[in-house]
Amino acid sequence: MWLSLKLALLCVAVVSVAMAETKDDAGAAEEILALEKAAMERWVTGDVEGYLKISSDNVTYFDPFTAGRLNGLPELSKLYRGFAGGFHFDRFEFVDPKVQLSDNMAVLTYNLVTYAGAKTERWNATMVYQKEKGSWKIIHTHMSITQPKLAERAE
Amino acid sequence: MWLSLKLALLCVAVVSVAMAETKDDAGAAEEILALEKAAMERWVTGDVEGYLKISSDNVTYFDPFTAGRLNGLPELSKLYRGFAGGFHFDRFEFVDPKVQLSDNMAVLTYNLVTYAGAKTERWNATMVYQKEKGSWKIIHTHMSITQPKLAERAE
Repeated sequence: MWLSLKLALLCVAVVSVAMAETKDDAGAAEEILALEKAAMERWVTGDVEGYLKISSDNVTYFDPFTAGRLNGLPELSKLYRGFAGGFHFDRFEFVDPKVQLSDNMAVLTYNLVTYAGAKTERWNATMVYQKEKGSWKIIHTHMSITQPKLAERAE
Repeated sequence: MWLSLKLALLCVAVVSVAMAETKDDAGAAEEILALEKAAMERWVTGDVEGYLKISSDNVTYFDPFTAGRLNGLPELSKLYRGFAGGFHFDRFEFVDPKVQLSDNMAVLTYNLVTYAGAKTERWNATMVYQKEKGSWKIIHTHMSITQPKLAERAE
């Protein structure tokens, strides 16, 4: 009987840990998605500071308009602040956001759709977050246009 | 004197651990870059199996030609095998590869340049690796064209 009881208690313990991990994972994914949405809510009004605030000092960055990768927050700040206030979107959607989570790093991916008047734009979005001193920070951003219509299609 | 000796030994221990971590980090970064280069060596000959072999079952994927994110190895395999053998590059370069490393996840970024005859193509490349059962696997790929020439430029 004692063995059964011990076994039962062990099972409860194992299940509790498993549930806690799952709950933690879901919590971390939700936290990251909430950070991203809050930053994007500011972004669509032309306010770039939300994204800069949650970007790591060591952030790396790709978009379709830069000649190569940007390295570090000073380079990213210079780029973002160069077009702060110069754009506006009426609304946005994150299509099918997904978080692939490790202990202290996470990959958030989604298709971003922005609407401005009659104009709709579609983007492929990758944001890698890392936990730094207890806070999730973006350490890598890769934005690209979904199925861009190319003037000259490379083979 | 004993205190000094203990302190010295402690310092040696701390420095040793720090060096080991640095060495491990450098080792992991080198290992990931070697995996990537080996896969790309096969890719440029039209052989897609190298990349599929090091991609996780849970890989997610963006490129400029897919309508949205691909999810999972079966979807990626179908895409890659659809154009296996149908392309060839004479050579390639990884420009400024960088690995941002966590315990068991790493972000590899570089600008890829491919050469085929007189044609040169430039890409922004993000590959997120995660350690699965002791082996580094790609859990996310995002490829996009560097500064694409667009037929109609969205605002």
